[in-house]
Amino acid sequence: MSRKTIEKKSRTEQSIQRRRFLKGATGAVAATAAASSFPAPAISQSLLQWRLVTTWPKNFPGLGTGANLLGDLITKGSGGRLSVKVYGAGEIVPAFEALDAVSSGTVEMGHGAPYYWKGKIAAAQFLASVPFGMTAQEVNAWYQWGNGQKLADKIYKQMGAKFFPSGNTGVQMGGWFNKKMNSLDDYKGLKMRIPGLGGEVVKAAGGNVVNLPGGEIAPALQSGALDATEWVGPYNDLAFGLYKSAKYYYFPGWHEPATVLDNFINLKAWEKLPGDLKSVVQTANAAVNQMVLSEFTARNNAALQTLIGKHKVNLLKFPDNVLNGLGQLTGEVMNDIASKDSLSREVMDDYLTFRQGALAWSSRAEGTYLPARLLPFKYASPSKKG
Amino acid sequence: MSRKTIEKKSRTEQSIQRRRFLKGATGAVAATAAASSFPAPAISQSLLQWRLVTTWPKNFPGLGTGANLLGDLITKGSGGRLSVKVYGAGEIVPAFEALDAVSSGTVEMGHGAPYYWKGKIAAAQFLASVPFGMTAQEVNAWYQWGNGQKLADKIYKQMGAKFFPSGNTGVQMGGWFNKKMNSLDDYKGLKMRIPGLGGEVVKAAGGNVVNLPGGEIAPALQSGALDATEWVGPYNDLAFGLYKSAKYYYFPGWHEPATVLDNFINLKAWEKLPGDLKSVVQTANAAVNQMVLSEFTARNNAALQTLIGKHKVNLLKFPDNVLNGLGQLTGEVMNDIASKDSLSREVMDDYLTFRQGALAWSSRAEGTYLPARLLPFKYASPSKKG
Repeated sequence: MSRKTIEKKSRTEQSIQRRRFLKGATGAVAATAAASSFPAPAISQSLLQWRLVTTWPKNFPGLGTGANLLGDLITKGSGGRLSVKVYGAGEIVPAFEALDAVSSGTVEMGHGAPYYWKGKIAAAQFLASVPFGMTAQEVNAWYQWGNGQKLADKIYKQMGAKFFPSGNTGVQMGGWFNKKMNSLDDYKGLKMRIPGLGGEVVKAAGGNVVNLPGGEIAPALQSGALDATEWVGPYNDLAFGLYKSAKYYYFPGWHEPATVLDNFINLKAWEKLPGDLKSVVQTANAAVNQMVLSEFTARNNAALQTLIGKHKVNLLKFPDNVLNGLGQLTGEVMNDIASKDSLSREVMDDYLTFRQGALAWSSRAEGTYLPARLLPFKYASPSKKG
Repeated sequence: MSRKTIEKKSRTEQSIQRRRFLKGATGAVAATAAASSFPAPAISQSLLQWRLVTTWPKNFPGLGTGANLLGDLITKGSGGRLSVKVYGAGEIVPAFEALDAVSSGTVEMGHGAPYYWKGKIAAAQFLASVPFGMTAQEVNAWYQWGNGQKLADKIYKQMGAKFFPSGNTGVQMGGWFNKKMNSLDDYKGLKMRIPGLGGEVVKAAGGNVVNLPGGEIAPALQSGALDATEWVGPYNDLAFGLYKSAKYYYFPGWHEPATVLDNFINLKAWEKLPGDLKSVVQTANAAVNQMVLSEFTARNNAALQTLIGKHKVNLLKFPDNVLNGLGQLTGEVMNDIASKDSLSREVMDDYLTFRQGALAWSSRAEGTYLPARLLPFKYASPSKKG
């Protein structure tokens, strides 16, 4: 449905409601409905128009398009009773002011990632992605069937917002490097762009951690201002052309195994929403949460094949001794944060408890299934075309 | 919202509409709306009441509750414009007549798994779960960003239905055995309950494949009528008490790495649905698809700990030589089915092509991330309580 359609429809429906009210045509029935304790039927709801600001550039692949999808599903699913218009970073407010704009009620909704708000509440970073932490499937289980949603609501409430998980990147890549990473010592003095908890770990390994917005990464790598950078995965990294300025593309993304995106909603606007529209928003977020992950999974496949086949990118796996050292430092960094902040401690404790159970299961499920699939048996192949 | 509320609301709204029509109060505006090509606003939609039949016992954990969730999200999200009442297997029709009831229009909706319909269309089994095939994350990507949805719609259209993926079990367990499985020869003469393509593979290995409904499995294993059985995973297997009658619990579930559940809708009922309600149904299915997987992930964790800790279950991994042999036989079984049926060939070709890309990516993502997480480093632990 186009913007114009919605606006026109809105005017039409408002006319209907005004006219009905003025003429009193439905007076008796309307009074019955109002006197009951049932939720107001759709017919009596006024149309709402909300604005959604994002931390992503407009239509940014996977992330900005995820926010577009959220707006679209809410608008369509509510039959236009709640229409959401999406704005890219900088259109109403700069990227990292999105949450402030929502808290203050300047706009009703935002879309980003929880670790962007760690400057406001340190515990928020445990909601986004934890180095050596849970995968997308596991973290979704924590949000939906563990205490994840409850803890996230507690954190976002302090920032004047309602929280929903609203997309996931899946396991990211480890990043682009201009030298081989053979031991933990190779991080000493390394100028690397890496945000969040992963950045703290690289700092602990002696790295010189730089934070740059997406658009400045490629030139900095080109000029030598950066020795290394991580971004997302094949899909986004190919789009940025990072392969042109780095020798090695390392995996796996130990620092961001499942980055959760967030939908944050002005708390008062959320609380005033009728029950059926609350359900539309909640369901749309659960759908987007999966559809964004599906997009990354599908497009990372395709982009990886382009990076390898066309651009001859040199893919390398981090050696186990490097991964083991980074894992050890992650534990120290996390304990250090938790020792200074009781809310971080609370979230981290719950996350770690759920992670222990998740690992016990995944080591029997995905953990042994994925290698079984790679055994040397001759499997069926697509038939030759033509 | 209770059933009574919906019915009462329905009567109220129908009264409003009748009254408005009879009095002609909104005549001018309504005529304008009707003459336009815009979708009809929610205000003019009549209330629909649909029945959803399932192949699962009422409220069956994970599966039946997934169908309940679907009905609930559609009813709530539509503000009661489309209310869905869920019936367990046998309440209106027996489990495996669910699709016939939907095709014929006896009821509007159903919930089950695509391999139940392989007797109608062989290709349907490739939509459910493929031995050594894609994981839940990958198969969702195939449905949403590959050709999965398109191919499934083609198959279900022939059965008079619209298809949506509507839940996923994730990687299942390999099953319960009363002897050790040390080589492929151990399948010779083995009386095992195992459905779908996995059953064909066990048959090809010399097994004596039996199909039994869920409720009869435990007694058959107890009496020795079965030597082995698979069911789902720790969550459901614990509920059935299968640990009481078998010595070994094998993993991984090579035969069902990601079983897709299906929501099938009478095609004419679907086509008549207004756009906004179509969107509600589609979005609810995408949400349920993820939420069911989250439930299995969360509850399998917990149940596995009970099986190991409380019931002292003996967990064993299938040896690589057994898995390799089963993989080889899977290729032969799949090629055999495709050689006899062009629709199976078409679906299989597309599935296998997507799987190749998915494996290239997952071997750099989850495939190396999961072992990295298990390296011997000291990670952070939950703090001691009390």
